[in-house]
Order: sequence, then structure tokens, then C-alpha cells
Amino acid sequence: MTPHRSQVAIVGGGPAGLMLSHLLGRAGIDSVVVDHREVEEIRTTHRAGILERDSVRLLTDTGVYAGGPERVLTEGDRHGGIYLRFGGGSHHVDFERLVGASVWLYPQTEVFADLHAARTRDGGDLHYAVSGVRVHDVGTDRPRVTFTGADGAEHELVADLVVGADGSRSVCRDLVEGRERWTRTYPFAWFGILCQAPPSAPELVYARSERGFALISQRTDDVQRMYFECDPDEDPADWSDDRIWTELQARVAGGDGFELREGPVLERTVLPFRSFVQAPMRSGRLLLAGDAAHTVPPTGAKGLNLALADTRVLAEVLVDALGGAGSAALDTYTDRALARVWKAQHFSYWMTTMLHQGERRDGFDERRQLGELTSLVSSEAGSTYLAEGYTGWPTP
Amino acid sequence: MTPHRSQVAIVGGGPAGLMLSHLLGRAGIDSVVVDHREVEEIRTTHRAGILERDSVRLLTDTGVYAGGPERVLTEGDRHGGIYLRFGGGSHHVDFERLVGASVWLYPQTEVFADLHAARTRDGGDLHYAVSGVRVHDVGTDRPRVTFTGADGAEHELVADLVVGADGSRSVCRDLVEGRERWTRTYPFAWFGILCQAPPSAPELVYARSERGFALISQRTDDVQRMYFECDPDEDPADWSDDRIWTELQARVAGGDGFELREGPVLERTVLPFRSFVQAPMRSGRLLLAGDAAHTVPPTGAKGLNLALADTRVLAEVLVDALGGAGSAALDTYTDRALARVWKAQHFSYWMTTMLHQGERRDGFDERRQLGELTSLVSSEAGSTYLAEGYTGWPTP
Repeated sequence: MTPHRSQVAIVGGGPAGLMLSHLLGRAGIDSVVVDHREVEEIRTTHRAGILERDSVRLLTDTGVYAGGPERVLTEGDRHGGIYLRFGGGSHHVDFERLVGASVWLYPQTEVFADLHAARTRDGGDLHYAVSGVRVHDVGTDRPRVTFTGADGAEHELVADLVVGADGSRSVCRDLVEGRERWTRTYPFAWFGILCQAPPSAPELVYARSERGFALISQRTDDVQRMYFECDPDEDPADWSDDRIWTELQARVAGGDGFELREGPVLERTVLPFRSFVQAPMRSGRLLLAGDAAHTVPPTGAKGLNLALADTRVLAEVLVDALGGAGSAALDTYTDRALARVWKAQHFSYWMTTMLHQGERRDGFDERRQLGELTSLVSSEAGSTYLAEGYTGWPTP
Repeated sequence: MTPHRSQVAIVGGGPAGLMLSHLLGRAGIDSVVVDHREVEEIRTTHRAGILERDSVRLLTDTGVYAGGPERVLTEGDRHGGIYLRFGGGSHHVDFERLVGASVWLYPQTEVFADLHAARTRDGGDLHYAVSGVRVHDVGTDRPRVTFTGADGAEHELVADLVVGADGSRSVCRDLVEGRERWTRTYPFAWFGILCQAPPSAPELVYARSERGFALISQRTDDVQRMYFECDPDEDPADWSDDRIWTELQARVAGGDGFELREGPVLERTVLPFRSFVQAPMRSGRLLLAGDAAHTVPPTGAKGLNLALADTRVLAEVLVDALGGAGSAALDTYTDRALARVWKAQHFSYWMTTMLHQGERRDGFDERRQLGELTSLVSSEAGSTYLAEGYTGWPTP
């Protein structure tokens, strides 16, 4: 048994756990990060790809790059807006003009890589590929985390505070006393592909069609990410390249010359759709961050951004708590974090219902949906409201 | 059999039918209006009460008042906004500041009275309390309307064009060839009361509460109109004054000192909730206007305004058609009118789903709804988007 002592034990070494560890380190607070996954697994699992303005700032303004190249800016792509595509044409929502903000196309895998590099450089105490992680005694002054290290050694970590940043299959969240959970399931999923093709558009294209939703996204100059609404039970093995391209082409068809550029499909997956919130986000000396406390559907790209927003609030709360404010500081966390969570839940739901076929309950809703999209793109105010949500609200 | 000849036969003598007859009269086109109801019945049936800016202009700028007092302005009340009430407090959406427009509280019964007075003054050919109205041969060059007059005399009216402005129980709409219909029903209704009490607020209060929606509206200095969400099968006879006030008070309760002022309930009715659209809005020489072609739920007060917007477009189309453009002019009607109809359908649906309990499918949607309202009132752009819809879009 290897005993450790740390101010903060962080369960979960994805972007949220690492960012929190990084922010705490800058404030002089030591933390230990444990995760059952291999670093390589996290680094290569394709996830979100759009960063809100404040998520970018969190990378550039807190020393993640320590004076080196700010990779999110040098490797990422600034997107000044999105396209809403319906009725055979694309309508640009120009975030830069409307709200003076951009988002950045920068894959979550790169965010992870940057944060992992930063924590490694700064001497962070990181334990990946561990097993049997258990959290104990969060209702006491002496919470503990036990786990088996990658090398088979048993560890016991005693901390002042424990953070559960252990994702959508969180075990930490089950330890929250008096918890309430709210879930919404959707009658559809996203069929996601990675393909070898040049980009078809300079920014994301959110397409609503009679056949259902499609999203044309980008990754690099010759690899693209695309999605289309599908049945949750769809089997990726049933979809040949030809079938995928036929479906995608049908969903972006129009009379405006838009050309969807094809290529070999490198990867195909079905992404489930679910909205989930658990509150409170704190119980005794345990606090939750990111997907452990809330999941949003991918439409609108709020998941990673919400997790990073949590860490910003949580770092402040933990610094206050450990600096002497104690549980009075911890008490503020749930309300501060949840206000943004519910706004983001609504935004994600709105983007989803506005564009997906599965949310059209009948022919009436089909046409009403077009009425909404028409109203939105023809209204400066409506487009601005969308841009505010997409680029992200300020953190309270 | 009394034979008549008219350029336009208008079935339905409510605000839409009369406004159209008025606009046509100003353009030198004669019309005959027939309605099975008594004038007094229409004049005393309480309906909508909020006029968009352009609806007010249609009354003031087209000679309805012919130089006399502009009653909509002298008797109506200008409302520069609405209140959204949730989470125990009211949030003012200031239309004047956001979009430079107001709406007017002026009951539909008064709009009818003004239009009826104008048509009578201008020698309009109006037939109320008729029976057995039938429309014939709209697919030919010689459509006819037959009916039995209030005095028992049989009439045959031969027209160039027939307009169906015969409301939500329209018979004309059944004559449209190749029609499609889209309907949405809602799992709730509005319980509406007229009560003798002073106003509780200077403008309409749209309240969202755990117990469901409520709307605090006004009528005069001592008579008010209020509504609360209820079961569609609710029996007004089951509701004593006490029970009504207890329910309304619970729905507007808050910690901000808002006081709902009570008084004897003068009238109680259950208003059904339904969205309906039929297209095309024209078939041969028959054209539909208002509720005959579309019904919106009352949230957002779009019904009467949409009917008046139809008449503005329709008058232009008919003037063009009878002025020589013929069916080429008629062909444009459906698309011009429907664009606004679907925007209004979405707006009404949005206002409804944002505020009603019946649209919360579970605890998730309950909290998401609060997330939406919070986003909306804290966003200048979101509030402006709402204000644009509420005060009305420009007519194309």
C-alpha cells in the first residue's frame, strides 16, 4: 500500500480533471489525478471539436502553453460562425459580426494532449491506467481514494477534498447524498464518420432536411468529421461508404451549388443522444465537474465547454475553501455551476429540436420547424441570441 | 330568390371579413358580406385583446375612423411590453426600448364594432343572421353564394371571387381542392375569466409556475381578463370564485410584492388549444383568410393579428386580380400569406411551450424551461427576438 496525501484528489484525467489540476497548481494547491484509462486511449478517442471563446481563453490565459506556441490558436481553426442549411440553401450566422466572438475548431483529443503535456511539464501527479478506483468517506473530514496502480501497487490517497470528473459513466456521482437526477432521452442518435476528404465548407454546416439532420464538420485539410441523424439502434456495419455518402448527399442537397466532397470513410460510430443533470454537484467533501454531473446532446457543442466552465468555477471555490473559507465556499458551487448548466441544456435542446426530424411529431411540427428557422435567420436579434449561446455565456 | 351581383362575395362578417370588405371598398371594388351570426352575438363574444402595431395601423391608416376619433388609440391602451413571471419574480420585456414598437390592448369586440360601423357608414352590403350559406362553382368563372336572409328571403349572389373568412368552423375551407391540413393538439386548455376588479399590472403578465401557466390581462379600469392553464375537460361549473382565485394566486405567487387583485367572476369559459393550418389558401376563385385557414393557440395573441395580416395581403391580391392580372395575382396569395402563418405558428408554439406545464414532459423539461426563461430575460438579443414576434413582423 502506497500512502499519499494531497489537498485535492481528482478522479478522472480527461480535459476537465486535468484543467482543474492545472488551475489548482497555479494557485499553489497540490492535487493527484487518477483515471482508469490509458493516456493513449483518451488521446485517440474522437469527441467534441468546438471550443467556445472562454474555453480557448482558459487554455491561452492560464499558462497551459507556458510561453510556447499556443497550439489551440496555431493548430486550431477560428470559426467566425456556422451555416444553418434548410430549404435548399445555407444561411450564415456570423458570430463575429453579431456578438464579436468566434469559436475554435480544435479537437478534444488535442485539448487533452495539451493539458496532459502541461501537467507533465509542471510535475503534476498523474495516475493513468489504474484500476479499482474507490472513493471513501466523503462525508467526513478525511475523504480517501483507493486504487490499484498501473504497476499493480495498491494506493491510498488521503485528501482534503475529492473531485469527481469521471465522465458520463461516473462512479463518484453515486456518492452524492440527497441527489436528484433529470434525464431526457431522444428518439434518435448521430451516425458519425471520420473521412478522408477535403473540407466542403469553411465552417460547420448544420443541415435540416426532410430526411433528417446532418452536420458537416471539419478536422484537418484532408480529414473531415460528419454526422447524420439515425436510429439509436443503427449498426455501423450496415453502412457501406456508398450508402453513407448517398444519405449525406441527400441531406445537404439544394439548388445553391453547395458541394459535399466525398472520400473513404475511416471510422464510423453511432453516438447516443441524452440529456442528463444531477444535483447537487457537491456532497460533503466531494464535488462533481463535467459529464459526471451533466450530459448534453452534441448539437451545439456544449459538452466539453460546459466541463471546462465547471473547472473554472470549481477552481475558485476550491481555492477559497482551502484558503480558509471552508464549507461556506463549497456551498456556493452547485448554484453557480448549475445556472450555466441549465442554460446550456436548453440551448442544446433548442438546437436539437430545431433541426432534427425525430423531434417533428407530425407534419405540423415539420412545417413549424421551417417557420422557426425562417424567423431565426431573418432576424438579427434571433441570430444574435443563437450566436450568444453558441459562443458561450460569461461565467458568473 | 333575390339575385345579386358583386365583384367579391365574402363569407364571414367578423373582423377579417369586414376589414377585407373595407379595404376593397377603398379600392373601388364592391363586395357583399354574409354571416350566419347576429351582429350582437359577434359584438359581445369576448375573444382576443391584443393588436400588433400593424393591426393598429390597418385601423388608423385606412380610413376606418374617417376623420372621427381613432377609437383604437383613444379607447385602447398602449402596452409597451409584457412581463414574464417565473421563479417568484417578474421580468419586463420592454418592446418600446427593444424594437421601438408597442402593442395595443383593444378587444376584438371593439375592432368588430369599429369595422361594422365603418362598413355601415360607407354603405357596405352586409347580411348578418342569414342561414343555409352555400358556396358553389368556385372552380368556374362564375362562383355563387346562396343563402336565406334574416327575413327568410332566398338570395343568390354571383361574384367574380369568393373569400372564405368564416372562422375556425369554416365551411369554405372544405371546398379547397388538393388541400393539406396540419394540426397539433395540446394536452391542456385555458380557463378564462372576466372579473370585476382593478388592474393588477399595467401590462400583460405571462406567468410560469409549478402549478401551470397563468395570464393576467386587462380590459378596463374595473373589469379584467385572466386565464390559467387547465385540463381540456375542465367544467367551468366546478369552479367557484374562491377556487379560481386560490388557483390564480398560487400561480403568480412570489417574493416581490406582486399583488393579484380579486373581485367577482363575471364570466368563466374553457378555451381549447389547437394549432391548425390548411394549404393552399386558394382554390380556383375561392380564397381563405384568417381562422378559416389557420388557428393558433392564444399564447402570444397572434390569431386576430394573423387574420388582419391576411386581409392586407388578400386585398392587394384581389385588387390586382380584378384589375386585370387575373389568376396570376391569385397564384401569389398562398405563399405570401403562409410565410407569415408559419412564423406565427412557431411563435405561438414557442410562447406556449416556454410557459405551460403541459409541455413539460418530465422534471428535466421543467428545469430546462426555467433555463430557457433565464437565458431569454438575461439576453438583450433574446428579448428582442421575442419582442419582434410579439409586436409583429412586417408584411411582405
